[in-house]
Amino acid sequence: MDAVKFLLPEDRIPKAWYNIAPRLPKPLWPVLHPGTLQPIGPADLEPLFPMALIAQEVSTDPWVEIPEPVRDVYRQWRPAPLYRARRLEMALDTPARIYYKYEGVSPAGSHKPTTAVPQAFYNKEAGVKRLCTETGAGQWGSSLAMASRFFGLECKVFMVRVSYDQKPYRRALMETFGATVSASPSPETASGRAILAASPDSNGSLGIAISEAVEIAAGDPHTKYALGSVLNHVLLHQTVIGLECFEQMEMAGDEPDVLVGCTGGGSNFAGIAFPYLGRALEGGPKPRVVAVEPAACPSLTKGRFAYDFGDTSHLTPLVKMHTLGSTYVPPGLHAGGLRYHGMAPLVSHILDLGLIEARAVQQLDAFAAGVRFAQAEGIVPAPEANHAVAGAIDEALRCKEEGVSRAILFNLCGHGHFDMQSYINYAAGKLRNYDYPSEEVAAALAGLPPVAA
Amino acid sequence: MDAVKFLLPEDRIPKAWYNIAPRLPKPLWPVLHPGTLQPIGPADLEPLFPMALIAQEVSTDPWVEIPEPVRDVYRQWRPAPLYRARRLEMALDTPARIYYKYEGVSPAGSHKPTTAVPQAFYNKEAGVKRLCTETGAGQWGSSLAMASRFFGLECKVFMVRVSYDQKPYRRALMETFGATVSASPSPETASGRAILAASPDSNGSLGIAISEAVEIAAGDPHTKYALGSVLNHVLLHQTVIGLECFEQMEMAGDEPDVLVGCTGGGSNFAGIAFPYLGRALEGGPKPRVVAVEPAACPSLTKGRFAYDFGDTSHLTPLVKMHTLGSTYVPPGLHAGGLRYHGMAPLVSHILDLGLIEARAVQQLDAFAAGVRFAQAEGIVPAPEANHAVAGAIDEALRCKEEGVSRAILFNLCGHGHFDMQSYINYAAGKLRNYDYPSEEVAAALAGLPPVAA
Repeated sequence: MDAVKFLLPEDRIPKAWYNIAPRLPKPLWPVLHPGTLQPIGPADLEPLFPMALIAQEVSTDPWVEIPEPVRDVYRQWRPAPLYRARRLEMALDTPARIYYKYEGVSPAGSHKPTTAVPQAFYNKEAGVKRLCTETGAGQWGSSLAMASRFFGLECKVFMVRVSYDQKPYRRALMETFGATVSASPSPETASGRAILAASPDSNGSLGIAISEAVEIAAGDPHTKYALGSVLNHVLLHQTVIGLECFEQMEMAGDEPDVLVGCTGGGSNFAGIAFPYLGRALEGGPKPRVVAVEPAACPSLTKGRFAYDFGDTSHLTPLVKMHTLGSTYVPPGLHAGGLRYHGMAPLVSHILDLGLIEARAVQQLDAFAAGVRFAQAEGIVPAPEANHAVAGAIDEALRCKEEGVSRAILFNLCGHGHFDMQSYINYAAGKLRNYDYPSEEVAAALAGLPPVAA
Repeated sequence: MDAVKFLLPEDRIPKAWYNIAPRLPKPLWPVLHPGTLQPIGPADLEPLFPMALIAQEVSTDPWVEIPEPVRDVYRQWRPAPLYRARRLEMALDTPARIYYKYEGVSPAGSHKPTTAVPQAFYNKEAGVKRLCTETGAGQWGSSLAMASRFFGLECKVFMVRVSYDQKPYRRALMETFGATVSASPSPETASGRAILAASPDSNGSLGIAISEAVEIAAGDPHTKYALGSVLNHVLLHQTVIGLECFEQMEMAGDEPDVLVGCTGGGSNFAGIAFPYLGRALEGGPKPRVVAVEPAACPSLTKGRFAYDFGDTSHLTPLVKMHTLGSTYVPPGLHAGGLRYHGMAPLVSHILDLGLIEARAVQQLDAFAAGVRFAQAEGIVPAPEANHAVAGAIDEALRCKEEGVSRAILFNLCGHGHFDMQSYINYAAGKLRNYDYPSEEVAAALAGLPPVAA
């Protein structure tokens, strides 16, 4: 009987994170100060982040050592299992060999704790008392709440109002871990109060919630800010995913021809892809690497590669990234973790260098793929992960058409246990596709800051 | 760094289930026909179960081989991990070594698929087209829905009306796997129609749902009935839990002094305990074995060991078990899986033989233990599993008082991702304890069938 899952003992948790930045043929574009439009230095970020994370943000070391207390916590669920999707292959009647790395085994149910834990650790080391963040669907908020608890930090989460009301279970998870959760916009910050004064019934947005969290952190020397994706150090932490896959694919006696991940801010995709991309840059095997994004928020396939703000309120520095314009508000699709106007600068840069492919998937196709996967493998994926499943199934069906067997490896970045309402809506025919919002995006892109690059 | 989790490769999935029945110093009491009060034979059960499962129900073989197609599906999550709860030990400041077997890694989130898969397999082998069952909280229903899908069977679930309305996510999980779910009482059966005629707004009960499922199965040659606990063959399937623990505790270089499991129908408790109990009966190490039940439904600690019906409507055969009386309706505590008036005959018999201990835990103490566990280990337990957590923490605190280090192993039979509403209610102070309902139980016990034994 051939194996379906490939497990590594906990002493095989990587000892260092993989930094792709120094391996790239062209360096990353600098981050600019929103006022001077000049490159910022580490000191500019110090009110928000501890110096250890700022150092990782700009590191040119090819490897960054993982502290033992972080590896100690990782052992709760890492190395995460790699699966061969044999029942899915049979259901698709494809000659493809389909593999998935399953990050839903973390206690919070997604890949997010893999960066939440080191972020909490470095803040604790720096004497910080409290972490403050924003969350949309709640995967990131619950991960940071858990990691904060493990390291004895307080945790404050601004949760986008519409999710706060619609996803009480995610909120309950954060509160069970001891975090304080406020609906955003809140009366607790100047930015929140300003929004509430203008529109008392505001649904909130990730951009507003970021403003609130940043404001709290900037105004309190004992509080720092934490972000769950986009930034270089966040993507760095996720590279243990791909590093573990190296060994697990070797156990499987196979090597991926195609890598697939879904992209919102870019961190789970980077986690599985960067180690493989780096190895290819160093002369190793060269898999095709496919980023899959929602058609309603297609930053990689339709956005412009330009300097833009990370938030809607324009408080953050400028980064060069694939963007739909920071004032673009994506429609209410159920993959809340993929509703971001921009893309991680590192992922954007790598697409610009032609090292990866990108494609967009419609919401109904993503859910159809997720249900197909669940019926074959038992695991119900998160709506975000359904995009990667759809991409992998498409690749597998292409193998069938072409009559070739390829190894497809995708990142199943989380389970959908807290997202079952979206499956209920899907089954009831209440979900819809979204046309590419070309006019809204054009309007948002017209407002990009005037930076030559 | 000492290990926190102990993993086995999938070729270490046991090749046989462990049957404790032939090892017991006194044989199990016979099952009686409800009409004749005489012992029933295999043929009496044939309308409901395939012969392979009936043979297991009465088997005197010490080992029952696990078919390869069943082991093949088990590989999706088995062997389940064993954890050392080091952060919980630190939080409790106890000298105890606390271990937990984590069954929440199954795709349906509990130990239930470990019997759902073989039940679906044997039915498929027997040419059955459809399985019919009842479910309360939905852990069993979602497990059978998944297993049925894997083996190409249709699945019909009668879900207790109050859960059907309150737990739409569990229902969505069953429907995602392709099962048909009806609220019980339903207009689809004579028993359902009778209840609805008398009380159109009935909340339903497990007893009513069993009647509906049995009625459908008995009336259709292509449909069989499946049960998620209580019966000998169900407990047999769960013994892989304890068998895996043997090897994993050896990896940990330790041996349990105390075993703890929660008991509703008895299957997860039996799964971890029977292999250890059997080994002790054969002269091996003799751990204390503690069954923990809810104070509001205390069949083991307060019930009578007597012949009683398995269902409220008195359609089933009579079994000798610890019972609160088959007409006793437990209050609406959140551990829906522990709301059963009786206890598995095998577990009851073993308690009667003095081989195990039993204790009852109040609802608020169970949730307090669950939150404590979640904050230390990250995993949020199911309300049922919280009873085992409470029992294990009590044992660990006793070690602290006595200043001795003992190894405590408990079964964490499932996660609480679909039960977060109960954590919300707990945090909001909306849950309560229940006094022992002595009058109601006395009344129900007064109605026991007049069988001398």
